[in-house]
Amino acid sequence: MGNPADHTESIRVRFSDTDAGGIAHHSSHFRWMEECRLGLLRAAGFSYGDLQKEGLHLPVTDCSCKFNQPIYSEDEITVHLWVTHAGRARIEFRYEIRGDTNEVKAVAISSHAFTNDSGLLTRLAVDSGLWLWLKGYLRD
Amino acid sequence: MGNPADHTESIRVRFSDTDAGGIAHHSSHFRWMEECRLGLLRAAGFSYGDLQKEGLHLPVTDCSCKFNQPIYSEDEITVHLWVTHAGRARIEFRYEIRGDTNEVKAVAISSHAFTNDSGLLTRLAVDSGLWLWLKGYLRD
Amino acid sequence: MGNPADHTESIRVRFSDTDAGGIAHHSSHFRWMEECRLGLLRAAGFSYGDLQKEGLHLPVTDCSCKFNQPIYSEDEITVHLWVTHAGRARIEFRYEIRGDTNEVKAVAISSHAFTNDSGLLTRLAVDSGLWLWLKGYLRD
Amino acid sequence: MGNPADHTESIRVRFSDTDAGGIAHHSSHFRWMEECRLGLLRAAGFSYGDLQKEGLHLPVTDCSCKFNQPIYSEDEITVHLWVTHAGRARIEFRYEIRGDTNEVKAVAISSHAFTNDSGLLTRLAVDSGLWLWLKGYLRD
Repeated sequence: MGNPADHTESIRVRFSDTDAGGIAHHSSHFRWMEECRLGLLRAAGFSYGDLQKEGLHLPVTDCSCKFNQPIYSEDEITVHLWVTHAGRARIEFRYEIRGDTNEVKAVAISSHAFTNDSGLLTRLAVDSGLWLWLKGYLRD
Repeated sequence: MGNPADHTESIRVRFSDTDAGGIAHHSSHFRWMEECRLGLLRAAGFSYGDLQKEGLHLPVTDCSCKFNQPIYSEDEITVHLWVTHAGRARIEFRYEIRGDTNEVKAVAISSHAFTNDSGLLTRLAVDSGLWLWLKGYLRD
Repeated sequence: MGNPADHTESIRVRFSDTDAGGIAHHSSHFRWMEECRLGLLRAAGFSYGDLQKEGLHLPVTDCSCKFNQPIYSEDEITVHLWVTHAGRARIEFRYEIRGDTNEVKAVAISSHAFTNDSGLLTRLAVDSGLWLWLKGYLRD
Repeated sequence: MGNPADHTESIRVRFSDTDAGGIAHHSSHFRWMEECRLGLLRAAGFSYGDLQKEGLHLPVTDCSCKFNQPIYSEDEITVHLWVTHAGRARIEFRYEIRGDTNEVKAVAISSHAFTNDSGLLTRLAVDSGLWLWLKGYLRD
């Protein structure tokens, strides 16, 4: 993807991200991508913790990942994130996890729905700060 | 899917599988499905730990999951697994994670390649015990 | 300790409980012990999830563990738990993690305080169901 | 402890470090402290991954932690580490986990033994690079 990422987050792989196979466990990739999503929100002035306190959640409804190369403890990786769909009910992201020579080690996508404290689907208010920011990612 | 699963594994969701959203973290699903894969091997007389000691690994090359319903700490879930591709170089699985009334809470797939200790792709020997068992899952 | 445990919980070690050292990560022991605590509550008719919904939490204030023997993926371990202090403000537990020949692989303790949703220390009401059960563990 | 730390490591708390209680899971603290240990080694020119490849492991034999204050997702914490014992067979560390105003949120210790690939106790060679560095921490 030629466009620059909408957000990047550099992460040091933890020893506890690995498993007995000697490499990072595949589930760790989803946790690193989550950190990049939170970083995107944080860079825009939104704290996911605060949103949750206000009763707004953004659970994952779908996700997938293709693993190209193993990732090891202490590796410095960079997660690149693109907002591929921005809506009042749903957001989608695309990710690349790159190593220290910028090689793409994994590519992934995730879809998210906005829910309230009861876990019910909800929509962002048209005049909410989150939507005013998020709609900047609408592409046509 | 009408066919009975090739393997099922009942799992008690751990409190440590949850996150501050109050539900099981989406990455936990991939760990539960992994336990079902190991259970399939174990039921067939293979220990994944022993296979790894002999230099055979089965890393995830692709995985995806669709999350239908939240899963909570202490929930008793059952992972249903189907072998959807069995080859000497590659295996694929399909999963359903069901709750205690058999409702499908998540569906997922994973693809795996056989690799050696150096992380290089390898193929099961035609007369290996693992392949003699695994080819029983060939469907035509 | 000669007395039979107040609760035991059998756990299959997950592959994702391990790290690149090839054995279960030391932090996994604390998660297994937590499952044994929840199991003790559950056996007495209390769901920790329900207690949390009612605004009662039982965070760890202190814990320690001595690791005698490595624990591997797929090991079947049994966590033995003793209630070593039962109070309206605080509980303490002692644990042994045993392998399949009953060998003690780790010993540990944890201390817990009751807190409310704001994280403030609280005390169980003298006539609460939880206290009526818990005070059965008072020893003199 | 008045002395400056032997190493510090700044860590962004991950959302996946939390649990359904809304705060970081107590086991997460042990993973953060591990990152600080690896950081100490790395700063001295040693990679724990390389040491493991050469057959040297440093498993935790004992650890304990006292939790003073809750830690939340996205908190920026700093782990301060002191080498409290340096020997050819064993190392001990003391830790403080501090928040962004330097308040001490948790204090902990860990003890480690050197082992080989078979899990047997071993001692650093007197002329090994690791020991030549480590003995600088001997205090009398």
